[in-house]
Parts: sequence; C-alpha cells; structure tokens
Amino acid sequence: MEPVERVRVRALQEGRETEREDTLAVEEPLEIRIRPAGGGSPFSFVTTMRTPGDDEDLAAGLLFAEGVLEGRQDLISLDRPNDPRVDADLRANVLMATVSPPAPARAGSLQRATVMGSACGVCGKTSIENVIPADRPPIGSPLKVSAEVLYSLPDRLRQRQSLFARTGGLHAAGIFSDQGDLRELREDIGRHNATDKVVGSALLREELPLSSAILMVSGRAGFEIVQKAYAAGIPLVASVSAPSSLAVELAQAAGLTLVGFLRERRFNVYAGGERIRSEDHRIPI
Amino acid sequence: MEPVERVRVRALQEGRETEREDTLAVEEPLEIRIRPAGGGSPFSFVTTMRTPGDDEDLAAGLLFAEGVLEGRQDLISLDRPNDPRVDADLRANVLMATVSPPAPARAGSLQRATVMGSACGVCGKTSIENVIPADRPPIGSPLKVSAEVLYSLPDRLRQRQSLFARTGGLHAAGIFSDQGDLRELREDIGRHNATDKVVGSALLREELPLSSAILMVSGRAGFEIVQKAYAAGIPLVASVSAPSSLAVELAQAAGLTLVGFLRERRFNVYAGGERIRSEDHRIPI
Repeated sequence: MEPVERVRVRALQEGRETEREDTLAVEEPLEIRIRPAGGGSPFSFVTTMRTPGDDEDLAAGLLFAEGVLEGRQDLISLDRPNDPRVDADLRANVLMATVSPPAPARAGSLQRATVMGSACGVCGKTSIENVIPADRPPIGSPLKVSAEVLYSLPDRLRQRQSLFARTGGLHAAGIFSDQGDLRELREDIGRHNATDKVVGSALLREELPLSSAILMVSGRAGFEIVQKAYAAGIPLVASVSAPSSLAVELAQAAGLTLVGFLRERRFNVYAGGERIRSEDHRIPI
Repeated sequence: MEPVERVRVRALQEGRETEREDTLAVEEPLEIRIRPAGGGSPFSFVTTMRTPGDDEDLAAGLLFAEGVLEGRQDLISLDRPNDPRVDADLRANVLMATVSPPAPARAGSLQRATVMGSACGVCGKTSIENVIPADRPPIGSPLKVSAEVLYSLPDRLRQRQSLFARTGGLHAAGIFSDQGDLRELREDIGRHNATDKVVGSALLREELPLSSAILMVSGRAGFEIVQKAYAAGIPLVASVSAPSSLAVELAQAAGLTLVGFLRERRFNVYAGGERIRSEDHRIPI
C-alpha cells in the first residue's frame, strides 16, 4: 500500500479554474492484534488511523508507549495475517504482534481499564503523578545542546520530509543527535503516529533509551508527545509550534527539556532549560 | 477551569535571551459518563483530552458523532458530579450524560465493540460502506456557494479565534451560512474536539441537520472530520490544509462537498464540485 495517492482536483484561484493532479496522504486503519507467545487466543488490541508505511515501527512504538512492551525482548515477531481467504487489502491493514508473557496480560488489562474509564491516568494534578511510576525516575541525562543546533533542526527536518513535500499534509517526527544530525525520520498523517514510528524504529533496533537524543516534531507538543518521549528516555523535545499546559507540567515533573515555537532562529524554553547551552550567546552584528 | 494558562518562559532569538510571559492552551482530560434515564448503573464511556470550555457542547457532539445520541431527544441532561467528597478540580473534568433508552445500550455495545476491535468500521473499501448506513442516504442538500464566499472564510475564522490569538496553539471549527456569515465557532487543542463542540452546540439548540451550513476547520481534513460532518448533515466541509485519501473517498460516497487548501484566495475541490458556483469567474485585471 502506497503512502500517497494521486487524484484529479479542480483548483480555483481568483476566479480562474483549472483541473490538475493532486497528491493526497493516504489514511487507512491499522489494526494491531496481540498473540500470546506461550499459546492463548489472539485478540485485537487497537485500531488506529495511519498513513501506510513503517507499520512495524508504528506497532512497536504504540505498544511500547501504551506499556504493553517494556522493551525489545517482549516482542517475538510482527507479522501480517497469512490467511489467504482474507482480502489482500485488509491484510495490509492488520499486524499481528506475538509477545511474550506478561505482555499479553498487560494488553488485556489496559483494554479493560480503558472500557472502565479508569485508564485515563491523567486527571488534573493526579495525572502527573500517575504517569511517573515510582520505578521510573525523572530523566537524568547530562545532554547539553547549543541554541545554534536547535535553530538548525526545523530546516533539517523539513528537507527530509519527502511525503510532506508531495502532499502538504503529513506530520513528521525526527530523532536528532546532540550535534543536530538527523538519525531517523518518520512521517504520518497523525502527529502521535509519527512519534510512535520513530520511537518504534529505535525499539526494534534495540536503541532505547534514547538518552542523548533530541525529538523534534512538526506541529504542537501535547501531553501525549511528551509522555511518549519520556517513556523512550528522550531528554529533549522540540516542536515548531505551541506546547499545551499539561505537556509543560509533565516535562517539568519528568526532568525533560521542552522547547516550543522553534522556527526562524528562535524558540521558547518551557522546562529543563539547563540542557540548553548559553555560551554561544553572541552579540548580533 | 480556564482555557489558557500563563507561564514564564525563556525566549532565545539569534543568541539573545529574554524571560517573558507566555500563554498556553490548557489541556485536561474530560471523562464522559453515561447514566441511563430509566435507572441502571452509570458507567464511564470515554475520556478525551480537551481544552476546558464548552464541555457540554463537546460531550453532546462526541456522543452524537459516536452514534450514542441519535438526536437532541435522546439527551435528558448533562451535569457535573455533585458529590462534595470529590475534589473540585476532578469534578470539573467529568460530565454525566443522562440519556434515554436505547442510548445507554448503544453506548455499551460501542464499548464492547471497541474492545473487540470490530468497531473500527473503517477497513479499506468496506469502511466507506459501513459508515453510510442503509438508512442514511447521501447528503442531498441543494446548497450552492460562490468561490468568493469560500475565499472569505479563513479570515473570518481567524478573526474570531480569540484563544488561538493568545496561544498560537488551538484548532478551530466554524459553522458558516451559505453567505459566509460565521454562526458558531469553537476552539480546542484537538481538531476533532473543535468539530464535536460546534456540532454539539447545534445539537443542543436542536438545529441538526445543518443542511445549509458550511463547516470550516483549521488544519487538515481527515476521515473523522468528514464523518462528523456527514452525521450532522453538513453538505460542505472546507479546510485550510490537505484532506486525506479516506476523507475524499467518504466525501464522494456521502455526497458531501470537500474543499482543501483554502487560503490566500485559492482552494482545491476534492468532491461534490456541483455545490461551488462558477458564475463568478472573473477575468483577472
């Protein structure tokens, strides 16, 4: 399945009408199923709308962010259903994750909790405490990044956003080194999916925690983006747009550096400013 | 609870550092509970992250979009929990919807379906058929809108986006008349929430279906935005950014007009072009 699709559109501009081809970002559901490695019935865990491509990264990252996988070792395999009676298009929208105990039990209890409405874990002040388990300390990474490196990230991200360039409609998440080198980039119609994909790719390569990495996201930084970065051990999250109130609160509580409105050689620091090196303050010419 | 929150930030620009105040969009969870009107135990239906404000509109719109409410008549009341033992901050994040039969049963079966992964309803080609129930025909509204009216919508939306102006981080959904008059505007950190709020406000005023209205959304038009417009009977959806492939497919199948990239006096028509009046084509000076 392709991540983009070509359609004919009528384009109107100042009263002039033309017909031309346009490239759309594909949006299709991906159903993630859980199969217990030791036997037991497979079950559907979640269905998410996504842009096809890097589905394995997305499934791994989403299962990690939700707490079903605690690490690479919990994931045995990710496979497409192989039942030939199922239509090929539908099979392309399903991934089966074979996971070792106790991951299937964690997935099952997450589902039940969701149904009961108690899985929220994000209720006012209580939320912040709930998402920082007692066994997960604040991020202690000694990472330091210069303002110059941060200024360079939006252009570097944009240059590699191949799908965005074609559709104007995709979000991106990039993992950068402390020198601003782009290590991995993933795109998706959903901001959360793009982050899950890039974290999932690191999980599959056994590179977690990403304790000396920068996560840069297009669009806004909401609570869930910071939550996913925290789970992956990423000490610095930068976004081109605004953070939310709860994203800032979580970043502060989790010892994570949060940078917003990073564009055109400026940014705001909302939390963890000690990781931004200030020795490169220059007197403007 | 306020929709915005003020924080101190460090702002860096070209090496110069200042400290200043910044205004953040508040992001907090809202839990929607269902109470059967005829008796029976209340249960938690869903928890969604949202920007506080117009919570009743959001709850009504979300329950309508999900199919729990088929109309205003199914909703008896929307109330905050009144148990004084519960912390006031937490009560502000909960709404209890008292609904008449068979709405509680629909809510319950939706939950079970979600858990079983079969509620997706959006699987490739099948999806489109599933979201157009046999008893809901394509939208037959005779609405006609001129290109000039469409050109005017982004500015009219932006002018009234009071929270966006303060935070740079909120999405908006507006209901416009066929003459481009803004009837209702709602803002939220989530695009889907902003649409649920504006549709929910119409439901509470018993104005559904909105068969001569235009829905204009900031950001992209994905499948779910078109789905919500279709449920509300809205014949024309316009967005400032790109639609997704599935949004276009649904709009075509549902007889809905879909306009994208509406900004700077231009737009593309992806479906239902017969509702765009072309008599105002002018020869540019």
